[in-house]
Amino acid sequence: MPEKPLILVTNDDGIYAPGIKFLSEVAARFGDILVVAPDKPQSGTGHAITINSSLRIQKTNYHNTEIEYACSGTPVDCVKMAVNHILKKRPDLVLSGVNHGSNSSVNVIYSGTMSAAVEGALEGAPSIGFSLCDYAMDADFTQAEKFIEQIIQQSLQHKMPKGVCLNVNIPKVKAHELKGIKVVRQAHGNWVERFQERQDPYGRNYYWLMGEFVNFEPEATDTDEWALTNGYISVVPTQADLTAHNALNKFSYFEQ
Amino acid sequence: MPEKPLILVTNDDGIYAPGIKFLSEVAARFGDILVVAPDKPQSGTGHAITINSSLRIQKTNYHNTEIEYACSGTPVDCVKMAVNHILKKRPDLVLSGVNHGSNSSVNVIYSGTMSAAVEGALEGAPSIGFSLCDYAMDADFTQAEKFIEQIIQQSLQHKMPKGVCLNVNIPKVKAHELKGIKVVRQAHGNWVERFQERQDPYGRNYYWLMGEFVNFEPEATDTDEWALTNGYISVVPTQADLTAHNALNKFSYFEQ
Repeated sequence: MPEKPLILVTNDDGIYAPGIKFLSEVAARFGDILVVAPDKPQSGTGHAITINSSLRIQKTNYHNTEIEYACSGTPVDCVKMAVNHILKKRPDLVLSGVNHGSNSSVNVIYSGTMSAAVEGALEGAPSIGFSLCDYAMDADFTQAEKFIEQIIQQSLQHKMPKGVCLNVNIPKVKAHELKGIKVVRQAHGNWVERFQERQDPYGRNYYWLMGEFVNFEPEATDTDEWALTNGYISVVPTQADLTAHNALNKFSYFEQ
Repeated sequence: MPEKPLILVTNDDGIYAPGIKFLSEVAARFGDILVVAPDKPQSGTGHAITINSSLRIQKTNYHNTEIEYACSGTPVDCVKMAVNHILKKRPDLVLSGVNHGSNSSVNVIYSGTMSAAVEGALEGAPSIGFSLCDYAMDADFTQAEKFIEQIIQQSLQHKMPKGVCLNVNIPKVKAHELKGIKVVRQAHGNWVERFQERQDPYGRNYYWLMGEFVNFEPEATDTDEWALTNGYISVVPTQADLTAHNALNKFSYFEQ
């Protein structure tokens, strides 16, 4: 680890979102900051990358950092662009967020914020996605500031297992109500969804996705949902291996 | 299982791609087919969903199916739209593909094809993503036709574990060279990438993502990459749980 670690900061709410402003300011206490983030909101873009069109980057001056670019692509594009083009090397730490809204449970697979962290881990860098369970644009990120500092500091001190990043979610409670940090697994849950149908002025239908999240195992105490409901910050070690290892022996009929 | 199962077919190359035409024709031998697929190519969109804009669907008549819609969104949007709006119930089987190109190893997280299958599993339906390791638009999908039939038939017969779908990749070899099916895990690998810089007619730079895939464990014989290299169709049981379960005990310092 060099004297001053090089920290890449990105997000999915776009480079002008309050959450990334806050995170880059906190991160600057620990190293040199490079911000490469989407030039517009990219919530729900998951692990999308731009391959059917080209990308652009634009120098910006919104964060007080030496190197700062808005990128026309997704959060994952931003990480690839930072590592392979702008830096041409691996940063010492990749931070994504702070997301305006939860990325716990199944939300991790839809999340551009967490996909950027997963991509950072794939690039071989210790990576952390931070999310606050508050969708408001004027959400209060300072409540968990000391915990965010702690997680960044400890992640710079300790080696992270190869290919693993952290999914950190912060409950929407006051600072004095935060009980601490729990290292937990992703809860089984899903969205119960519907499409709201509307008509445009020309009589044609269009649809908005709507839904409510349901935790399928509210009784389990080792999940991110439990931690958040009970006033803890949840930390889920997260990886890009989607293999259902427990199910590998359930499909032997295919091989016969 | 009803007499005639209801099978949803989708993909990420778009509703007019040869791969989905082939898959819907094969699937029609096993049940009633509903096609809901993107109205344009959506490769590399991963698990993206459309939440910052609305969606449209348009009846089409390209496949010989009773219900067929082109959707303005991503592959995952297509599954949500089919289940929650068009059908208003869970299909008996979700098939995605056949993708023009490999979705083995780490490609699974970038793949719209596989994200549609993962979404199907989240909706509680047995789901399979098929990919042929040939990017050509005139690729020969018939070489593996009998294996695709076998996998569909056996997946309708056997119960699939909850939340698990299948990532099926087919090597680019002649029919008589196909050795069979291997149930394997996702290989550890990644893309070594760079951005090709170009200038538009106005002197501004733009970038194309380029890269080559590297298998980090070419010696391992229990991976999808090994199966494909050795003439087998790879079947990887796949799930939406990104928790690095083996790493859960490596971060106890956060809780102290």
